[in-house]
Amino acid sequence: MPRYKGLLEYKGTPFVGWQRQPEGISVQSCLEEAIFRFCKERVATHASGRTDSGVHALGQVVHFDISEYWPAFKVRDAINYHLKPYPIALLDVEEAPATFHARFSAIGRSYEYHILNRYAPVTLDQGRAWRISPPLDTARMQEGAHMLVGTNDFTTFRSTACQAVSAIKTLDVFDVRQEGDRIIFFLKSRSFLHHQVRNMVGTLAKVGLHQWSLDKLQAALQAKDRRCGGPMAPSHGLYFHKAYYPQ
Amino acid sequence: MPRYKGLLEYKGTPFVGWQRQPEGISVQSCLEEAIFRFCKERVATHASGRTDSGVHALGQVVHFDISEYWPAFKVRDAINYHLKPYPIALLDVEEAPATFHARFSAIGRSYEYHILNRYAPVTLDQGRAWRISPPLDTARMQEGAHMLVGTNDFTTFRSTACQAVSAIKTLDVFDVRQEGDRIIFFLKSRSFLHHQVRNMVGTLAKVGLHQWSLDKLQAALQAKDRRCGGPMAPSHGLYFHKAYYPQ
Repeated sequence: MPRYKGLLEYKGTPFVGWQRQPEGISVQSCLEEAIFRFCKERVATHASGRTDSGVHALGQVVHFDISEYWPAFKVRDAINYHLKPYPIALLDVEEAPATFHARFSAIGRSYEYHILNRYAPVTLDQGRAWRISPPLDTARMQEGAHMLVGTNDFTTFRSTACQAVSAIKTLDVFDVRQEGDRIIFFLKSRSFLHHQVRNMVGTLAKVGLHQWSLDKLQAALQAKDRRCGGPMAPSHGLYFHKAYYPQ
Repeated sequence: MPRYKGLLEYKGTPFVGWQRQPEGISVQSCLEEAIFRFCKERVATHASGRTDSGVHALGQVVHFDISEYWPAFKVRDAINYHLKPYPIALLDVEEAPATFHARFSAIGRSYEYHILNRYAPVTLDQGRAWRISPPLDTARMQEGAHMLVGTNDFTTFRSTACQAVSAIKTLDVFDVRQEGDRIIFFLKSRSFLHHQVRNMVGTLAKVGLHQWSLDKLQAALQAKDRRCGGPMAPSHGLYFHKAYYPQ
């Protein structure tokens, strides 16, 4: 039974998130419906990581099995055809070994978070960036971000509903760069806790606004208590960037 | 009577274009309505250049007069407030001398045109880029673009409805750059003919697809005949980038 690995881009705005839910339209249900329309098979799709409602993906990785063999480019084009008009697209599809699993084979994930730092409302990027009006101190946020890099107990920044067994994660990269009035956070880790990126970015915004000292950020991390963290950044500034696999 | 100069960003998708029309919603009518809600005055707004339906602006320049004096930042914030929920925003407002005219004082305009060169449908950039599936030869398009730079009779690339007295224009810059699967054309001129940018980009796409030779492009320019030009690129890939003023 051929297994296919797909690279998926989507705009998260109209969806309840990646995962199928009892109510609302999910990316997963759209993808599985498009696969069904293409090959008349009800297949289960698996993603490298879930995304919440409103969160976008630049390079989500999925896998699924189809009983009949099709060349990968036909799978890509046919599913893309049936995904219309949803803002979901398979950028690439390739055949994968039966041992490949989008989630369990992944050895890393990266995210971007986009802030528009300006007074003017968002026009072209509506639903695609978090606007913060007062000036943010990017250098200070970078300093704060670097304090979070490494192996830490991230309880302060995990959702209280997070189901991970351990809150200890290794954050490999947390960079902050500015391009005009856009501030882009880039994060890489083997895996992330639920809401970890958004809670860390929301807290760093407090640091960038000079409402939080760097000492307070350090103390919040060490408190291992969600109540000591800053507010959660909204979902619409978050992008699942990439999933990483061996070799 | 204070005159204000505004820097305007908008997403062109929901509009019939910059200019007020008998039917449909224009950027101009939204802006004038927002000014009215702010100061209860019916004012006329003037833009550095018109944009067609679907065309976006990153830095359109407008001016308008209000009889009462308000600090520029108040004008900006109040108009932005009343522009909601339209994807139009005043990035900046400043006081301008009575001699300033957004259109007649401008000594240059620049545009960007965005192509997504990939098989996958557009998701995050729906309405914001022209997707072309077959691979485009960017270097060849750059070569073609450079052939159009300079003082030329651009009749081949003007709309048959264009009302400009002369088709002779000086194209100062026409650069093509690639960022991943995105190809960005950048053009600068004192002024452009109606549909000139879109007709040139549509023709260059033919060159990039190797459907047109560079000789054919040269001959098309020299023919001074719209029937010898290539097809017009769609409006939704076009961005009014900037207007230039003395000093």
